[in-house]
Amino acid sequence: MTQFDSPVVAVDIGGTKIMTAVFSNDGRMLAKDVCPTLVDEGVDAVIERLASAIYTILNRNGLVTSRLAGIGIACAGGIDSASGVVVTPSPNLPDWFDIPLQDIIEKRFNIDTFVLNDASAAALGEQRFGAGQEVKNLVLVTLGTGIGGGIIIEGNLYLGARGSAGELGHMTVDEGGPVCGCGNIGCLEVMASGRAVAREAIRRLVQGEKSSLTEMADGKVESITTEQVAAAAAAGDSLALYVLSRASHYLGVGLVNIVNAFNPEMIILGGGMAELDSLYVEPAKKLVIERAFSISTRNLSIVTAQLGNEAGVYGAAAYAIEQITGRTA
Amino acid sequence: MTQFDSPVVAVDIGGTKIMTAVFSNDGRMLAKDVCPTLVDEGVDAVIERLASAIYTILNRNGLVTSRLAGIGIACAGGIDSASGVVVTPSPNLPDWFDIPLQDIIEKRFNIDTFVLNDASAAALGEQRFGAGQEVKNLVLVTLGTGIGGGIIIEGNLYLGARGSAGELGHMTVDEGGPVCGCGNIGCLEVMASGRAVAREAIRRLVQGEKSSLTEMADGKVESITTEQVAAAAAAGDSLALYVLSRASHYLGVGLVNIVNAFNPEMIILGGGMAELDSLYVEPAKKLVIERAFSISTRNLSIVTAQLGNEAGVYGAAAYAIEQITGRTA
Repeated sequence: MTQFDSPVVAVDIGGTKIMTAVFSNDGRMLAKDVCPTLVDEGVDAVIERLASAIYTILNRNGLVTSRLAGIGIACAGGIDSASGVVVTPSPNLPDWFDIPLQDIIEKRFNIDTFVLNDASAAALGEQRFGAGQEVKNLVLVTLGTGIGGGIIIEGNLYLGARGSAGELGHMTVDEGGPVCGCGNIGCLEVMASGRAVAREAIRRLVQGEKSSLTEMADGKVESITTEQVAAAAAAGDSLALYVLSRASHYLGVGLVNIVNAFNPEMIILGGGMAELDSLYVEPAKKLVIERAFSISTRNLSIVTAQLGNEAGVYGAAAYAIEQITGRTA
Repeated sequence: MTQFDSPVVAVDIGGTKIMTAVFSNDGRMLAKDVCPTLVDEGVDAVIERLASAIYTILNRNGLVTSRLAGIGIACAGGIDSASGVVVTPSPNLPDWFDIPLQDIIEKRFNIDTFVLNDASAAALGEQRFGAGQEVKNLVLVTLGTGIGGGIIIEGNLYLGARGSAGELGHMTVDEGGPVCGCGNIGCLEVMASGRAVAREAIRRLVQGEKSSLTEMADGKVESITTEQVAAAAAAGDSLALYVLSRASHYLGVGLVNIVNAFNPEMIILGGGMAELDSLYVEPAKKLVIERAFSISTRNLSIVTAQLGNEAGVYGAAAYAIEQITGRTA
């Protein structure tokens, strides 16, 4: 059996869960496992848990490391894919500065390891196995605590010079807006993400605005979550409705920028916020039709991701397989 | 002699000049000619002049249409490259709505004709023959009356689903900004272009602000040009300096968006405004270093275009040759 005939392990490290999976070299998922990330225990502990998770899924499936072709890791944050270093943190993994993840895992397992941004991985996963199959040019936007992006050009993942292309949540859409966690001003993420929704609701409640959210949170308005804002909006709360519609408006502005820059055939929306259809996604889609170049909206479809929270491991597996075999679209 | 051995004619239609050139099929410029566009005479007259310019350069060089392999046309505006239609106008060709340029020229000359956006053409020209040779991933931004963009991915021109990718001047950078000519709000073009500079200076002068520009324009402040603002700024006029620095700031914001989205190895700045180095380009470059993802700025170079106003015909020639031969990078 050649190395190419061997399976790969794919990992997706998020803010709450680490998902591991074993894939055949033609991209079929053979096994899947999930464990908590426990970010608060620190970077070293998370990496230890990640390594254990890889050993565990191998053991459970009767595999040994020497049979693996490689390991693909999708990770939140600004990733230098050329070196496999997590250079800058994301809201989900806030302390991950300059973590040489590829190096650590390669040394630990003595297997070729490939690291890419989780939203880029999701884009590749959705193109190979999900909503974007057969689509040549597409952009995936993950709408969660933060906002990430992944770009497919001519059927292949586009990572740019160092692997950090696709940071579409960190395009300034309002130069008059607040400072983003990335240091830039008025980014799409700071205007339209789940965290932005919760923060704006909290800011208004602290200033004394009235809302059913205060009761929903037992008066602890500082701990109000995006989910609570969405629930209050669905029940007709006017503050919650306003906050969500504001975020939706900025999402639309960001999508217009993506459409005008990329003229994609498809935009795939993933992440938890993508499920807030009428309150968040639909008004943003309308703004795209109103404001983007008409040539670029004519054949555009904006769809919901199909692979759910498995998009990252599917993409990490495809990335590892394509890096090992040199085969792309 | 096969068709592939035959030369191509390349055309660049701008707001003031139509440039025509003959290229060998390996991309050497054999002859060049320039005539005025005279936009005010209307679309039909400009197309008539364009056709005459093609006949003229063929005649002068002893060529007949039957010897040509094809015609490549770089044109301002939102171009559907798949059909060769100028769908939406640009500031330079303001009345060009739904003009089937490819069809008109193909029927006139009975030769395969290929139409692309002028900034996309400039990007391809600079990558094949100018500042971006050997660079795999680059973005070109034209800084003139309007702001355009062209994208090179893995050595090839990226045009998107319909050919309208790269409208980087029409990304919203300030949702609180004015309406852009394209209908979108606070676009990079409406905040940072040559026209934006002149308009902002005029607005302030009309409101009664003091400036040496009033004298420079003999009191006719409504007709003040970008060049006059630049000259006044170079001479230390504080209103002109402020207006240029504001535009430069927004240029920086736009470049940050491009860097975070594309992680290019190189950004090439073309167009007349790219020559305003210390007053416009340099502060924008500083903002990129301050605000963009550090991974994406580490190996980034921001350079000036090398082919000047010939970038468009070089790119139009390369595009036609590559469309005819099917050969790309």
